Amino acid sequence: MIQTTTTAHTNIALIKYWGKKDPVLHLPYTDSLSLTLDSYYTTTTTSFLAGDTDQVRVNNQVASPQFFKRTQQFLNLVRTLNNSQQAIAVETINHVPTAAGLASSASGFAALSGSLNKLFQMNLSRKELSCLARRGSGSATRSIYGGFVQWHQGKDNPSSFAEAIDENPSLPIRLISVVISKQAKKISSTQGMEHAVNTSPFYAQWPQVVNCDMQAMLQALKTQDLEAVGRIAENNCLAMHALNWTSRPAFSYFTKETLQIINLVHKLRSRGYCAYYTIDAGANVKVITSLQDVAAVQQQIQLNFPQAQLTLLKPGPGIK
Amino acid sequence: MIQTTTTAHTNIALIKYWGKKDPVLHLPYTDSLSLTLDSYYTTTTTSFLAGDTDQVRVNNQVASPQFFKRTQQFLNLVRTLNNSQQAIAVETINHVPTAAGLASSASGFAALSGSLNKLFQMNLSRKELSCLARRGSGSATRSIYGGFVQWHQGKDNPSSFAEAIDENPSLPIRLISVVISKQAKKISSTQGMEHAVNTSPFYAQWPQVVNCDMQAMLQALKTQDLEAVGRIAENNCLAMHALNWTSRPAFSYFTKETLQIINLVHKLRSRGYCAYYTIDAGANVKVITSLQDVAAVQQQIQLNFPQAQLTLLKPGPGIK
Repeated sequence: MIQTTTTAHTNIALIKYWGKKDPVLHLPYTDSLSLTLDSYYTTTTTSFLAGDTDQVRVNNQVASPQFFKRTQQFLNLVRTLNNSQQAIAVETINHVPTAAGLASSASGFAALSGSLNKLFQMNLSRKELSCLARRGSGSATRSIYGGFVQWHQGKDNPSSFAEAIDENPSLPIRLISVVISKQAKKISSTQGMEHAVNTSPFYAQWPQVVNCDMQAMLQALKTQDLEAVGRIAENNCLAMHALNWTSRPAFSYFTKETLQIINLVHKLRSRGYCAYYTIDAGANVKVITSLQDVAAVQQQIQLNFPQAQLTLLKPGPGIK
Repeated sequence: MIQTTTTAHTNIALIKYWGKKDPVLHLPYTDSLSLTLDSYYTTTTTSFLAGDTDQVRVNNQVASPQFFKRTQQFLNLVRTLNNSQQAIAVETINHVPTAAGLASSASGFAALSGSLNKLFQMNLSRKELSCLARRGSGSATRSIYGGFVQWHQGKDNPSSFAEAIDENPSLPIRLISVVISKQAKKISSTQGMEHAVNTSPFYAQWPQVVNCDMQAMLQALKTQDLEAVGRIAENNCLAMHALNWTSRPAFSYFTKETLQIINLVHKLRSRGYCAYYTIDAGANVKVITSLQDVAAVQQQIQLNFPQAQLTLLKPGPGIK
């Protein structure tokens, strides 16, 4: 039996993806930019099955109906591309704890795309793979590559893909994932961005905000300016969340703990530490810091939030 | 000795004023709309003095140098208008506790304008008075009138004035001022709005947001739709605060208590109470509710925030 395995790492967006101009193809309204992370990843094995029933297992368990359905939709897409009707077995081992507040769908669909690429011997380039992964989950587009990655929004299926900006960053960037709330978020990112696109009076400005932030971020990466990277990421994150706060009716992923960690980050920065934050569609905060300051910053966060679960993250690799 | 006394009430903006296109004349970038409140007011007495030294007293104490300077600038303006060089005594009794998070400068400069109008026998109309009060403090423009008041932004000094929309509202609106933090805010509203105008990428959209909200609010007042008044006020308040969150560097008047009260208001609303919020340049929340629900809403807030200081407010009158 042919079996192919691929590992893909999750990523954190420093310039956020918020709003789909095509919800079926997952074409975004703007470019985005992410950092692939080392510790959180998904390993997916696929193989052909006799019979006509797909099998999907996650962490050695039969997948939930919801997970099965989403995976099968993707399998159908890949079968169509290959004029195939063969049933497929998918074995996923997810090293992205749900509580981490980092999207496992990013690493999940990147790994699934990579594995199916080998299984069907499609010989897709990484650029083509990033297009394919996008069909499973927008942010999976970026998890094909390591390090800093830019997703070009594009205008149709082949032109919306990601590209590596710096796969093995020498920039001494570190992230601390601060988990304060393990409550599932009430509004999914798909629902949230759709509502913001449709109702926030500030959404019209969002593409321009991203353009400016993107130019500044590419420049900061070129000049290896870690403080600028943090500052731009923090600003962009707040602009994204402001779209939610100004949706009508308004919603927010922030809790009081989110605000408290934000305040602590400000305090650490005023004391001279490299410390910025970024927040995805959830209550948990990721603190951006430097190799030099990461130990001190981590210690301060733990001291102030003894209940918080902290994980240290550094740049991670592309799919293997 | 001629002595003239005027009382003016403070107001809460339901469509916010945020950004000056002329910082000297206090010409705003947009219209705004407020409700004058009954319980908080300022009574100001003025009289001419022999000699050439102005005297300013607040609550029976000599005014602080800062308060004296701001008042004297206004006296100079009024003297210039009247070709006068006479010294003036100002006696202000302020019934707006600083901790209330409601601007005492609104009622203060409205009362001072009214008193000086009589002292100098200027015979200004209320429209002209609202122009004059604006020179002391933007929000004072609206405190000339009672009930619901619209400030027309205008394009120069005589065209930027307020107008009564509904001086004796039959709309059964009630407000609960919820004071959770008595800390002085770190960023004044003048500083805050200037920074937002200069650096928020969303500011370009703000005039359009206010236009839409203003049209909807005038319609809601016409149809006596209290729920719509609350909803529009809440949305507009969040749009205003989003300008601050997206300033660069970002700032916010919110504390964790602000978020907690917001969450409670959402909860009360989901239980069927009329409950909305509006927040000015500070951490404290004003809950908009109805005559019918005010007792229950107040009780729920007090139950959940035993430390909070609550004050019930209803529509108040214009200057007297």
